[in-house]
Amino acid sequence: MVKNILLTAGLLIAVAPASTPVDELRGFTTESAKAERDWETKFRAMPSPDSLRSYMRRLSARPHHVGSPYDRDNAEWILAKFKSFGLDAHIETFDVLFPTPLERVVELVAPTKFVATLQEPAVPGDPTSGQKSEQLPTYNAYSIDGDVTAPLVYVNYGVPADYERLERMGISVKGAIVIARYFGSWRGIKPKVAAEHGAIGCLIYSDPRDDGYTQGDVYPQGPWRPREGAQRGSVMEMEVYPGDPLTPGVGATKDAKRLPIAQAPTLTKIPVLPISYSDAQPLLAAIGGPVAPEEWRGGLGITYHVGPGPARVHLRVKFDWSLKTLRDVIARIPGSAAPDEWVIRGNHHDAWVNGAEDPISGQVPLLEEARAYGELLKQGWKPRRTIIYAAWDGEEPALLGSTEWVEAHADELSHKAVAYLNTDSNGRGYLGMAGSHSLQRFINDVARDIDDPETRLTVWKRAQLRAVADAATADRRNEIRGEHDLRIGALGSGSDYSPFLQHLGIASLNLEYGGEDGGGIYHSIYDDFAWYTRFSDTSFVYGRALAQTVGTAVMRLADAEVVPYEFTSFGATVGRYGKEVEKLLQDAQAETAERNRQIDDGVFAATADPRERSVAPTRRDPPPHLDFAPLQNAIDAVTRAADRYETAFTRAQATGTAFAQPSAAALNATLIRTERALLLGEGLPRRPWFHHAIYAPGFYTGYGVKTLPGVREAIEQRNWKEAEAQIALAATAVSAEAEVLNRAAGQLEQLAP
Amino acid sequence: MVKNILLTAGLLIAVAPASTPVDELRGFTTESAKAERDWETKFRAMPSPDSLRSYMRRLSARPHHVGSPYDRDNAEWILAKFKSFGLDAHIETFDVLFPTPLERVVELVAPTKFVATLQEPAVPGDPTSGQKSEQLPTYNAYSIDGDVTAPLVYVNYGVPADYERLERMGISVKGAIVIARYFGSWRGIKPKVAAEHGAIGCLIYSDPRDDGYTQGDVYPQGPWRPREGAQRGSVMEMEVYPGDPLTPGVGATKDAKRLPIAQAPTLTKIPVLPISYSDAQPLLAAIGGPVAPEEWRGGLGITYHVGPGPARVHLRVKFDWSLKTLRDVIARIPGSAAPDEWVIRGNHHDAWVNGAEDPISGQVPLLEEARAYGELLKQGWKPRRTIIYAAWDGEEPALLGSTEWVEAHADELSHKAVAYLNTDSNGRGYLGMAGSHSLQRFINDVARDIDDPETRLTVWKRAQLRAVADAATADRRNEIRGEHDLRIGALGSGSDYSPFLQHLGIASLNLEYGGEDGGGIYHSIYDDFAWYTRFSDTSFVYGRALAQTVGTAVMRLADAEVVPYEFTSFGATVGRYGKEVEKLLQDAQAETAERNRQIDDGVFAATADPRERSVAPTRRDPPPHLDFAPLQNAIDAVTRAADRYETAFTRAQATGTAFAQPSAAALNATLIRTERALLLGEGLPRRPWFHHAIYAPGFYTGYGVKTLPGVREAIEQRNWKEAEAQIALAATAVSAEAEVLNRAAGQLEQLAP
Repeated sequence: MVKNILLTAGLLIAVAPASTPVDELRGFTTESAKAERDWETKFRAMPSPDSLRSYMRRLSARPHHVGSPYDRDNAEWILAKFKSFGLDAHIETFDVLFPTPLERVVELVAPTKFVATLQEPAVPGDPTSGQKSEQLPTYNAYSIDGDVTAPLVYVNYGVPADYERLERMGISVKGAIVIARYFGSWRGIKPKVAAEHGAIGCLIYSDPRDDGYTQGDVYPQGPWRPREGAQRGSVMEMEVYPGDPLTPGVGATKDAKRLPIAQAPTLTKIPVLPISYSDAQPLLAAIGGPVAPEEWRGGLGITYHVGPGPARVHLRVKFDWSLKTLRDVIARIPGSAAPDEWVIRGNHHDAWVNGAEDPISGQVPLLEEARAYGELLKQGWKPRRTIIYAAWDGEEPALLGSTEWVEAHADELSHKAVAYLNTDSNGRGYLGMAGSHSLQRFINDVARDIDDPETRLTVWKRAQLRAVADAATADRRNEIRGEHDLRIGALGSGSDYSPFLQHLGIASLNLEYGGEDGGGIYHSIYDDFAWYTRFSDTSFVYGRALAQTVGTAVMRLADAEVVPYEFTSFGATVGRYGKEVEKLLQDAQAETAERNRQIDDGVFAATADPRERSVAPTRRDPPPHLDFAPLQNAIDAVTRAADRYETAFTRAQATGTAFAQPSAAALNATLIRTERALLLGEGLPRRPWFHHAIYAPGFYTGYGVKTLPGVREAIEQRNWKEAEAQIALAATAVSAEAEVLNRAAGQLEQLAP
Repeated sequence: MVKNILLTAGLLIAVAPASTPVDELRGFTTESAKAERDWETKFRAMPSPDSLRSYMRRLSARPHHVGSPYDRDNAEWILAKFKSFGLDAHIETFDVLFPTPLERVVELVAPTKFVATLQEPAVPGDPTSGQKSEQLPTYNAYSIDGDVTAPLVYVNYGVPADYERLERMGISVKGAIVIARYFGSWRGIKPKVAAEHGAIGCLIYSDPRDDGYTQGDVYPQGPWRPREGAQRGSVMEMEVYPGDPLTPGVGATKDAKRLPIAQAPTLTKIPVLPISYSDAQPLLAAIGGPVAPEEWRGGLGITYHVGPGPARVHLRVKFDWSLKTLRDVIARIPGSAAPDEWVIRGNHHDAWVNGAEDPISGQVPLLEEARAYGELLKQGWKPRRTIIYAAWDGEEPALLGSTEWVEAHADELSHKAVAYLNTDSNGRGYLGMAGSHSLQRFINDVARDIDDPETRLTVWKRAQLRAVADAATADRRNEIRGEHDLRIGALGSGSDYSPFLQHLGIASLNLEYGGEDGGGIYHSIYDDFAWYTRFSDTSFVYGRALAQTVGTAVMRLADAEVVPYEFTSFGATVGRYGKEVEKLLQDAQAETAERNRQIDDGVFAATADPRERSVAPTRRDPPPHLDFAPLQNAIDAVTRAADRYETAFTRAQATGTAFAQPSAAALNATLIRTERALLLGEGLPRRPWFHHAIYAPGFYTGYGVKTLPGVREAIEQRNWKEAEAQIALAATAVSAEAEVLNRAAGQLEQLAP
């Protein structure tokens, strides 16, 4: 489901001392490291581009959205594959609310008439694009039913700042239908914010400047979105909770207690439909009123106006609200020494249509990893921990398969899960790494062992040189050059790691190659085998690289005597987040003071063009000073504890034997609690499903991550009282982390005194 | 000719202490200040919007380019007007090379056929747009004749940085025709740089993103450039010298010695033609090769490619190279006390077509000022100095009328000119001020006496609040709030101040209202009375404000006992320029070191996409350290001298009588030398016509100003030897200025010891 979230999160670097000599492996004894290196080397020779290609051809051969025949067929085929590799596997089902369209109408009714086609045409030379009878039409899942006619207002990306701008222009969307372009936020934010401002309907279109001919040649001449291409996608309010809207917090099993649909809080409040730029052009061209602000203007060959009207639009959508069955395919390799410590790796298998890129390009490396593990097991490899491989269903609508599975197995996962490794789709280019910062050192070490298919470099080195090239300032460039590890991004949402990380506090990673593979087929019928094998990772060498990367990571996590978390990176990162939220408040104070001064000085009156309608801003109360001391103290404590742990760890690692079992078992039991310590007991305000104190999707950005979310969002929303309370709660979580780390350090100090 | 040059230069503020109490006037005795205030108040009540409107209707009624019947008719009408106001006036003629088109062909000959229309259609409701028989066709003046057919390459704005980008993409323009969009530089730079890179022809088009429907509704629905609108304009190499190409440095009088046309160095090296975006679209759509870099993509509904080819274009242009007659209209009000001290004020009267905005909106306030002076003279006003009002001909092709007049009267002007005040066109909004920094305090004081038509503020206060609103940083905002004066911009070129300021070293100002008057009719047939009175300063209240502003400035300069130059602003400004050129070198050193390091580290190899052609950059020699000490010492000296002068001036001003004539006459004689002291004896390298050490148009930016040009451009061109020599020459000029200022300070100290 996610689109380039890793690239958005950026490839960055963390302050941490080098600690592991090249011939060592973090968390392994000298002996076991050697064995591990041998198994990993064998493993990395196994994934085959030809297999990846043939898996993709099969899995993307027909549309396979939730509830479709081919979705079930794929699940059964994946199950058979796992079994054929020699793995223990089964399908686990859930029954979830997943609406599909019955009626879709968008028409301009004034000042002229135009009826939107809402159709993506088949393309010559692309056989699957013509599978009309099986394709899910273009729509936004979890829009409510609706039939509205109203003046149209163009709201740019439809994020809160856009409505502030409209307010300054004296324009209201009350009673209007808004048309917003994709990008600038997760799509579900657009109808949510529109409804908050009184709109009664919402159209979302793909502007060619962001996602069409302005970017490059359009399909089939090139990889970019063609005129009639439209982006399907969920608009559920997943920032409140993802998964089945009717069974929040519990698995959507046959007998689960379900909310009535009318009470499901995560459905939209107004009807929504996505349209192509071909359908959007006549609508936008018919809007009058002021010319849109410069940054709002897209790539259509028209003057963009804001409205409201004279364009009036009729929007009608009606859905089949029946429950559909999800099929998660779960394979398990039992751990030889620590079967109750689980390393989980997943990628979804459902798509909006054929989904060659999203998700199959991430699913097929997973299958090759599983095939290789089957081979290694036959050769005598015995992973210490249990490995669980999951092909999730229903990620596209709302992370359904992963969320319901996590909710159904929450207790067991809370006790046993060491890490969750996610992929979603894959392309050509640079390794993108994001996740829990306790895994930053670990995944950097893995990346140093993977060869880039296009250069003579490791994927780590290539990513580092890219970061050097992209650095905005000389200072940042010098940091990147000086730091031992690349800083990994923080996770918001947009793929199946969300329930693991943010609901249960399981250390997670999301991995992907990309950055050289532009295109505009996301969530359209053109995301298929023909497109992928012509424009993306055409030789599947990056598919192989992803299998090598994730597979190596899973093996190493599963085999290490001591779970190879590292916490100084976490301490440095949360220290930066702490400084950021303090600065956020300072900036709000300075901006408020400046705004009030400009109002007093008459700046707005002096600069308003009398020929244009405008509304002057009003004075705001100055933000108070807040007590950040509890958080600062907690961050200092966790930083000291991380240093203590690392010192003890380095000494123990150096002995070569201190990590031998069973002495390390108790330490691992403590380490598994480290990410769990970061959970907030009550969850985040107004969305208690989200428990993680450090990482959450933004309440007004959707996928986009908010770090220290309780504190950050309270400051952003100018809710000072809540901000102060959230500082204390975040401090409690970070202090709890410090306590667990000190306990782990104590255990280590006994292993190698 | 100039388009928004003042707005580009920005509205900024200078460090200088407040020195003149409200009831005083700088350079006046207490007595004479009172009289001056009375005359100025009378003056400012006189300019009439109705008169401005009727003058504009008359002057823009027919096309009036150089050599046309209506150009002559206008000159004679302006002459009659001056005379009717009671002024002594005459027409001065020059004979200059001004080519007009005989043949114009642009056609796509492969892969498909398309013939460009090269026509601007008449518009309903706009009577003068249909005057086809008199309109000069769309063309670029001083393009050479040519007939070429070649593959087309899109070069973005066609500035040197764009060719560096092409080089990195492995693309050459050798033997190609380039198509560049307007903006990003003065248009004449585009064919010059194209020819330097081996191109054999150049098309320049108006992209709708910069200058068309992306900006707003197009004419006649709105003020912006319609699909078939094209921008005429000169492409002469005016950065070498402006004026008649055949008579560099001397007036183009009947008997002047003329170069053969083939030896004229300022003609283009390749044929050039401007086209509309309607004509450009099929050409650009036919270009293949790599997709253009993101910033290069315009607003046409296509994917922009770079080429070369497969589009092949045939370009044929042929011109009538006969001499045409210029008619400058010169009016004179002899000075009562100091007839040999001249204050000159000009605006051109020629246009590319009807030219209601450019230049008539600046010409008609000049006429109202002259009319008001006629009235004041009748009432007994006796300006101390001689006032010269000039309506220049031939500004559009190459500042012809002003340059030839300045060259013809160079000796006299060098001895007598106190200041030159220029306007060109005018619109609605904010006062833009640019010019010699010795006049910064003066023009700020004038701006504090003018009422803004749209607010209850002075135009100074409105401009200051705009600058506050636009400030990029809080530091800059605080500077603006704290400084006594708004910083005025420096002058590059683009209008008739150039020969006065940069050839002869006459302190100059350029003034204009604008910023609320967007539009896209520049140098097209749609720049006419219908457009101006519908979309720009429709009630002519800003025309009145411009007359009040410039007229007050001229009166005050003509009447002051002591010429009201102020030099601490100059010292602070040149101090900033000095720091800028030092930083330019430091940046070049840092960038070179970084680039070389990235080459050594393999960054370019790591980040090159193997599916895209690219050429790695090569190592560069590190820039040496240069000896800036002579310039730093000179700047310190001029700063001290300016402070000494200001201290003496303030004491003398406070006496109330020290400025009484004839004691101040010798001081004025010294002051007239101050701007002249800044001239470089030999002029700038490779363009000796340009003498000013502080201000020049850029050799590779055209209109865009380069301050400390000899030093700055040598560093930019990495010519370190020349940079060192130019530092010494600039230091000599600035030291000479310090010497003159010390002499003036000495004279003042005697007036009020």
